[in-house]
Amino acid sequence: MIIKVDKTIKEIEKEIEYLRNKTEKPKLLSLTTKLNGSIKAYLNSQKEIAEKYGIDFEYIKSDNLYEDIKKYNNDISVDALFIARPLKKEYDEKQVAKLIDPKKDIEGISYHNIAAMFYEDEYFIPCTAESAVKILEDNMDLTGKNVAVLGRSYTVGKPISILLQKQGRDATLTLINSKTQDQKEITKNSDAIIIAIGFAEYLNEDFVSEGQKVIDVGINVKNGKLVGDTKRSISKICDVTPVPGGVGSVTSTILMRNVYRAKILNRGF
Amino acid sequence: MIIKVDKTIKEIEKEIEYLRNKTEKPKLLSLTTKLNGSIKAYLNSQKEIAEKYGIDFEYIKSDNLYEDIKKYNNDISVDALFIARPLKKEYDEKQVAKLIDPKKDIEGISYHNIAAMFYEDEYFIPCTAESAVKILEDNMDLTGKNVAVLGRSYTVGKPISILLQKQGRDATLTLINSKTQDQKEITKNSDAIIIAIGFAEYLNEDFVSEGQKVIDVGINVKNGKLVGDTKRSISKICDVTPVPGGVGSVTSTILMRNVYRAKILNRGF
Repeated sequence: MIIKVDKTIKEIEKEIEYLRNKTEKPKLLSLTTKLNGSIKAYLNSQKEIAEKYGIDFEYIKSDNLYEDIKKYNNDISVDALFIARPLKKEYDEKQVAKLIDPKKDIEGISYHNIAAMFYEDEYFIPCTAESAVKILEDNMDLTGKNVAVLGRSYTVGKPISILLQKQGRDATLTLINSKTQDQKEITKNSDAIIIAIGFAEYLNEDFVSEGQKVIDVGINVKNGKLVGDTKRSISKICDVTPVPGGVGSVTSTILMRNVYRAKILNRGF
Repeated sequence: MIIKVDKTIKEIEKEIEYLRNKTEKPKLLSLTTKLNGSIKAYLNSQKEIAEKYGIDFEYIKSDNLYEDIKKYNNDISVDALFIARPLKKEYDEKQVAKLIDPKKDIEGISYHNIAAMFYEDEYFIPCTAESAVKILEDNMDLTGKNVAVLGRSYTVGKPISILLQKQGRDATLTLINSKTQDQKEITKNSDAIIIAIGFAEYLNEDFVSEGQKVIDVGINVKNGKLVGDTKRSISKICDVTPVPGGVGSVTSTILMRNVYRAKILNRGF
């Protein structure tokens, strides 16, 4: 079966509506160091979703990313900053994480926001990780369940491993990497799988068993089509989120909610 | 068998010697909000080890911890700050983590240092977690190995889960909490176990199997004696660190090395 994310999105939209009634129109600024076709397409769709939720949106091609981040940190007309990926290779993700103002950091990547997540005092957390965990939680009670996580990126795998340890979630995690022996054994015996490795259709029938929930975070291009890290056909055995239209859609909605949260945060409570 | 930590300590002492030759005598200040028998005993032993490594040591009973942290952050005669636990209950660990200057934070608990660990750009990392991982690494190659971690405290379990995901370490982790089903099944089938739950002698013969390495982070008082989170008798089946004299001893040495690192950091490179 395909896991529908409509309910998860509706719930986030409720918070957006609530915040929208409490504040003026917020401004989201996206900075990009490249402007190729796929980044343009992404930014155009971001514009569309921003407008849908009543957000003022602009994107700028940045030729000096670090300086621009500092500039817009201090620009009170900008409530929220988004940094489009991939970055040009002269830039360093860690430097971006150090520079960006935590109060405008809707992607949840800044040093402050990462540490706040660690201390369970979070406000903005890595948005794709939040999306994956939210969908999983909306579809099963995690207490005492075994969850296998594939991938350990800064933006997805690693924050998911922190989020799922949170008191009250109480899942038992197994964190799988490319060196892991018996990957299939582990995933088959889990109640849920989150995969975020960026390998098109890696997770096939051999990895899954009946009744499992699989959250597919991957977005890959294969033969000109968007595919996830899982093979579509596993949906005959277990429940899996669609690509596109699954984790990515929820992430986009979370980002827009975070723009409103940033607006409220920046004007003070 | 009992895992000896002498070699691990010697290696850290080498770095201490190296740094000691490069700088003047550093100053470590420990702040405590309580001054009962066991905290006094801890601080006295800290004084002893500080003197052994040529460190100027002082402790102060603090009646206003947050203000004192700010004060000594700015006091250039103090190179390193240590906050004795447990804190009086009016104080909040997260607030301490937010306030302490990352450059004097030899325990590796500050927001900045936690985020730096997450981004694999670490300098000071939670000292007990570093100690446990260091002992484990000194006793086995972790690549492709299964490691079960029991406990998810901010100071030990959680940072260990981040450290063991590091690229190049490549262990497969299973993070066990009190709600985990089949705990014994999981621990028995792991190559190594790190336990940091604070339950005296919790891990007994039923949890372990031959050839495993067990890192015991617990320090508990039972019938007036110090005991770990493991039963001593498991050393007949597997290899386990002693309590006292295992993780705690390595942690103390790491803290003293960190005092020197802080001295060098604060005077600039």
